[in-house]
Amino acid sequence: MTVQEKKLSLILFSGEYDKAMAALILANAAGELDITVNIFFAFWGLCLIRDPERMSLEDKTAFEKMFGLAAPNGPEDLPLSRMNMAGFGKAMLKEMMEDHDTPDLSAFLKGAQKKGVSFFACKLSVDVMGFKLDEFLPGVEIITAKEYLQDSLEADIQLFI
Amino acid sequence: MTVQEKKLSLILFSGEYDKAMAALILANAAGELDITVNIFFAFWGLCLIRDPERMSLEDKTAFEKMFGLAAPNGPEDLPLSRMNMAGFGKAMLKEMMEDHDTPDLSAFLKGAQKKGVSFFACKLSVDVMGFKLDEFLPGVEIITAKEYLQDSLEADIQLFI
Amino acid sequence: MTVQEKKLSLILFSGEYDKAMAALILANAAGELDITVNIFFAFWGLCLIRDPERMSLEDKTAFEKMFGLAAPNGPEDLPLSRMNMAGFGKAMLKEMMEDHDTPDLSAFLKGAQKKGVSFFACKLSVDVMGFKLDEFLPGVEIITAKEYLQDSLEADIQLFI
Repeated sequence: MTVQEKKLSLILFSGEYDKAMAALILANAAGELDITVNIFFAFWGLCLIRDPERMSLEDKTAFEKMFGLAAPNGPEDLPLSRMNMAGFGKAMLKEMMEDHDTPDLSAFLKGAQKKGVSFFACKLSVDVMGFKLDEFLPGVEIITAKEYLQDSLEADIQLFI
Repeated sequence: MTVQEKKLSLILFSGEYDKAMAALILANAAGELDITVNIFFAFWGLCLIRDPERMSLEDKTAFEKMFGLAAPNGPEDLPLSRMNMAGFGKAMLKEMMEDHDTPDLSAFLKGAQKKGVSFFACKLSVDVMGFKLDEFLPGVEIITAKEYLQDSLEADIQLFI
Repeated sequence: MTVQEKKLSLILFSGEYDKAMAALILANAAGELDITVNIFFAFWGLCLIRDPERMSLEDKTAFEKMFGLAAPNGPEDLPLSRMNMAGFGKAMLKEMMEDHDTPDLSAFLKGAQKKGVSFFACKLSVDVMGFKLDEFLPGVEIITAKEYLQDSLEADIQLFI
């Protein structure tokens, strides 16, 4: 089956380890099938593309600082959507993934970028949450909801995760 | 790019402030691009279109009354999906939105209706939860899952939020 | 309106009673409209298609056994995504559904299979969670994320639930 010139458009709204994993497994699988993949990170999803080594507190309001410190910082800091049990459930899931030689979320994230998956951050969310572009992973581009829609209209599959 | 005669079809299943916000930001952005937008409110999503001033306890079973009182009543009554922290997280988010002159959920809801976004309520959910049509915002129409599907088949983007 | 040769492709990632209900109501409604329906069960969604009478602890690691015992076992064992209140909210919802002669989740699940809805389990999730094919309902087939994507590209509606 030829799947050339096909496009997958994902919104990653959730900031949970398992949901981010689902998005990135789809993105990587699509990349291997030569499907073009765009991920639009919005709200909690932005936590996934925060670079843990580039967090900044400069030029932020008190609320933005508090929020930046309280919200998960990078892929391995995200909780599970269910059975997180203060981190125990997540640790268990990660062990089980390792038993099956399944890469972790950071590896899937890097894999997606290597396969040419485009990462977009939602402008409104970035503004409201007080993030700065240089706090994100290299290669992330900030776009508006309108730009997402215009791009997504041309996709073959659109999912909200 | 011409986006005339394009259609966005959203299911809003979630009853959380941030997810409802995501749906309405997309709906408003699409409306500004002259994309036709239909929102199908189901289950918890119905809480968003409850008119806080038109709640009724008449003709309801005991369970329906309890449910009607316990479930969020209107947009500003919805909790956050994460970091709600007994309402503190939500209050913080609303402050941060105000700092950036971002309208609140009620304003996005009114904006969507002004832009011609159609609001549909899921018949089965309405029946099970014991809501009455006149408890919803003016303009809401009740349709079945089948009617949603028939409409959604013609859409260019379908999302479940 | 003719809806022949149309296709609905659902990912059921969530393991909650209300979200599974939403997926199966759509699947059943689509089946009645002669729309082809495929459901791809991933992560927590796999809990829905566990056969409560066929749980096995054989050939499993310690983590897989613990996980298998802790995770919901079959449709009626799933919690609500909101207002679950230690099972009280779910019991209330089920009472309210009964008042309106709405079938329960197990009935919707059987109805979907009777209408020819195809059930697929995500290979990676099955492997990581340590499930065996014979722990699932009869008729479930295990496929990869790539196979899901290739199938889903041909669908008219794709939703992530």
